[in-house]
Amino acid sequence: MEKIEHIGIAVNSIQSAGSIYEKLLNTTVYKTEKVASENVLTAFLQCGPNKIELLEATSDDSPIAKFIAKKGEGIHHIAFQVNDIHAEMQRLKNEGFVLLSEKPKMGADNKLVCFVHPKGTNGVLVELCESVEETN
Amino acid sequence: MEKIEHIGIAVNSIQSAGSIYEKLLNTTVYKTEKVASENVLTAFLQCGPNKIELLEATSDDSPIAKFIAKKGEGIHHIAFQVNDIHAEMQRLKNEGFVLLSEKPKMGADNKLVCFVHPKGTNGVLVELCESVEETN
Repeated sequence: MEKIEHIGIAVNSIQSAGSIYEKLLNTTVYKTEKVASENVLTAFLQCGPNKIELLEATSDDSPIAKFIAKKGEGIHHIAFQVNDIHAEMQRLKNEGFVLLSEKPKMGADNKLVCFVHPKGTNGVLVELCESVEETN
Repeated sequence: MEKIEHIGIAVNSIQSAGSIYEKLLNTTVYKTEKVASENVLTAFLQCGPNKIELLEATSDDSPIAKFIAKKGEGIHHIAFQVNDIHAEMQRLKNEGFVLLSEKPKMGADNKLVCFVHPKGTNGVLVELCESVEETN
């Protein structure tokens, strides 16, 4: 794990939350992106080497809609940057962690991503992400 | 805000969670520290420029005990590193954010800290922290 790539925050509206986080971080949303496969709209803000990803559900069966219905707005996941997601997935499987997919999927922000089941990480939803630019 | 300084994770046992996060991050807990004022025991793991802070309650009236009783184990707060916490607190007050203390307090890991009320940050408990080494 190289660093915290981003923290994902589930929000009702990325327009409203974007404005709040722009004030909080004293910066601007530099990108918004729809991730159709997850039914979410995302907005990114940079904070030094890290990012904040705001996540808004685009349908009621989005994981973000379900999260907010259950827990309210708040921190949804921590994403760690890895250099080789396949190797890291294998290492974590060997350590006994449960991965939510057998293979990495294409996520937002040009990343290959895989989630780790929160039951094995003290309730924390952990995402691994590898920049696609770094793959060959 | 310079970077995400750490993510605070509320856990039942930092001994058990420490072992899990050592495996997850492929590193070792480099420090444990009791913060008497908050009734918590903390353990830190490094991940590149960022840290993970595991938090275990040392009494039933600890904020961490209350958090776990309400929500279960999981992500408790995001801490952002700032260079001048007094200036940043004033900036955030001017932007309409509600701070949980009038003055910074001494936190774990040699940091002056201040929390921002989660009602103004989409349910996210935000901590500002300034390294004491950086103050004069």
